[in-house]
Amino acid sequence: MLNLQTHTEHFTNPLYLESGRILEPFDITYETYGELNEKRDNVVVVTHALTGSHHAAGYYEGDSKPGWWDGLIGDDKAIDTKKYFVICSNVIGSCFGSTGPMSQMFPYEESYRYKFPVVSIKDMVKAQRILFDRLGIHRVHAIVGGSMGAMQAMQFAIVYPNFADKIIAMAGTYATQPWAIAFNKVAQESILRDPDFKNGYYDSKIIAKNGLSGMAIGRMAGHISFLSHSSMADKFGREYKRDDGLYELFGKFQVETYLEYNGYNFTKWFDPLSYLYITKAINIYDIARGFDSLEEAMSRIKAELHLISFKEDMLFRASEMEKMYEVAKKESLTCKYVEIDSDYGHDAFLVELDKFEKYVKEALEQDRK
Amino acid sequence: MLNLQTHTEHFTNPLYLESGRILEPFDITYETYGELNEKRDNVVVVTHALTGSHHAAGYYEGDSKPGWWDGLIGDDKAIDTKKYFVICSNVIGSCFGSTGPMSQMFPYEESYRYKFPVVSIKDMVKAQRILFDRLGIHRVHAIVGGSMGAMQAMQFAIVYPNFADKIIAMAGTYATQPWAIAFNKVAQESILRDPDFKNGYYDSKIIAKNGLSGMAIGRMAGHISFLSHSSMADKFGREYKRDDGLYELFGKFQVETYLEYNGYNFTKWFDPLSYLYITKAINIYDIARGFDSLEEAMSRIKAELHLISFKEDMLFRASEMEKMYEVAKKESLTCKYVEIDSDYGHDAFLVELDKFEKYVKEALEQDRK
Repeated sequence: MLNLQTHTEHFTNPLYLESGRILEPFDITYETYGELNEKRDNVVVVTHALTGSHHAAGYYEGDSKPGWWDGLIGDDKAIDTKKYFVICSNVIGSCFGSTGPMSQMFPYEESYRYKFPVVSIKDMVKAQRILFDRLGIHRVHAIVGGSMGAMQAMQFAIVYPNFADKIIAMAGTYATQPWAIAFNKVAQESILRDPDFKNGYYDSKIIAKNGLSGMAIGRMAGHISFLSHSSMADKFGREYKRDDGLYELFGKFQVETYLEYNGYNFTKWFDPLSYLYITKAINIYDIARGFDSLEEAMSRIKAELHLISFKEDMLFRASEMEKMYEVAKKESLTCKYVEIDSDYGHDAFLVELDKFEKYVKEALEQDRK
Repeated sequence: MLNLQTHTEHFTNPLYLESGRILEPFDITYETYGELNEKRDNVVVVTHALTGSHHAAGYYEGDSKPGWWDGLIGDDKAIDTKKYFVICSNVIGSCFGSTGPMSQMFPYEESYRYKFPVVSIKDMVKAQRILFDRLGIHRVHAIVGGSMGAMQAMQFAIVYPNFADKIIAMAGTYATQPWAIAFNKVAQESILRDPDFKNGYYDSKIIAKNGLSGMAIGRMAGHISFLSHSSMADKFGREYKRDDGLYELFGKFQVETYLEYNGYNFTKWFDPLSYLYITKAINIYDIARGFDSLEEAMSRIKAELHLISFKEDMLFRASEMEKMYEVAKKESLTCKYVEIDSDYGHDAFLVELDKFEKYVKEALEQDRK
């Protein structure tokens, strides 16, 4: 039994952010699967990506789609909910229950909007640590995440070296590279220039109904970075919609229909200010910040490190994960690195579970050598 | 002496397009360098890319920047104007003198705008062939182009097999793949959704003055595809503008400043309708169209084929050029293929001339074996 539970915790103590600013009060919405054992030593933390949420597994009543990593999390699955108590929380800055730019800027009635402070991946991790403290969880078996989830896992490993026994980070990086920042820039610029965005003073009900084309266009650019040349060629080829002539200016290739659908659909369930703030958090992510070098930062890690990359990941290249592995070896950390032979691209961590789930399972279950 | 000359030819005969539509009348603006010899057998045709023009080399009076391939074309350069008479013409659909969507829709006073017919790469090539006929040039030594210029060169080789002795095509493909179509989609969507675009009824004077943010954003996406992960990392690193704090929402990494500058600057010198039409021409480019297979299409080629790809070209992958080479071998064509060891990305064909100019020179000068 998955035993899916969703909760929101309210915190009145100030959250001191990396910027020097304060978030106060703040909420964190989280979800759990499985049962906490008596020794409280079977906790697995799952961390989500840019547009993910705390809803990582199972079905909500009436939903036809499960949580975003349902294939990986559940009874007898790689993250086995018969064994582990799994927690996934929505990051601060996001829009699924945890405090973000559209939350009330207490004590005022209105939303923060641009007055929301810039949060970093380190801040997201700090907020989660406070949540876990409240839940009486002071040490966990593992932290598992992909993409921005991998960034959180790595940041946990460095900032709280005694918190997790194992870190399983996939499709991430040690510091966001200009290629990824460039894709985020297209999205940010496209949101900011949309007249319906109104400098952050958009009407969220109207946006939810009609979408925000600026965010849709930005998301289309994002989708390019999530795939690869070959996965796009396999998925779409040069298929052309039959009801439009090849020589009509607005006739569409299948890849165009895909981007349109996913782009515009996205604007109905994600908040544009959250998109600005979370992409900012990704852009400024650098685990070496505050240290003299990446080596110095990573030398703090005590957890067993499991790094998984995907060969044709176009967003965070396999070479970026490999660099962390090289540093881990240099610093004599316990570290295992696997490059998954996949043409799918970045989204492989969400889609090609069969290619890497055994490594996650092994990592969770093997005793430390 | 480069002997730069710019001309525009006016054609009153109809240009029958691949779509079945007609362009009539039409103009072609072109530029020449060097001297046509008496035997008229020293012509080298240069074909330009998406946003290129007929101005491929030399300086216009008062300009500080030369034509886009000035490093390659000139006295004693790889395309040696002491030996060759070089012609480069602006493609139809573009906005630098040849007929395009903002040209007058004769006999009416107004511009075509959306009434302009979709043109294909094959149409661009056909129009050039008509120009060359008027100039009394019925056969040329070589056709050289990169990116969309390579598409034109390949299309020339197939449609007019007896026209050129040598085809030198770099950083191109045999048919535009969904990855490239996706980047064009972001740009097209971004232009179309810009309220100042007014469904093609924009005021071009206002656009030229203020820019069109939709096109700027689309161009930013384009710039990502022109570079590579490593060229971006080398060029920009994680350099952050000092006058903005790291934790300011609108603080900028250097790559962001670069994209903004190039994106917004671009809108001041390129026409948004031309961008829509030329990206459409690129999207529908497929040299096998009208044939049963790529093999059948390429089997028509009689010219000596020189294919040059760039290892980290993210827009048109080296593997796409390699596929043409494989087919050329299968069809027993005279074909040479070189993959240039470059991390720069697609723009290498404009930037890293020193890495491939010797192949261009060799290709132009060696006798056919």
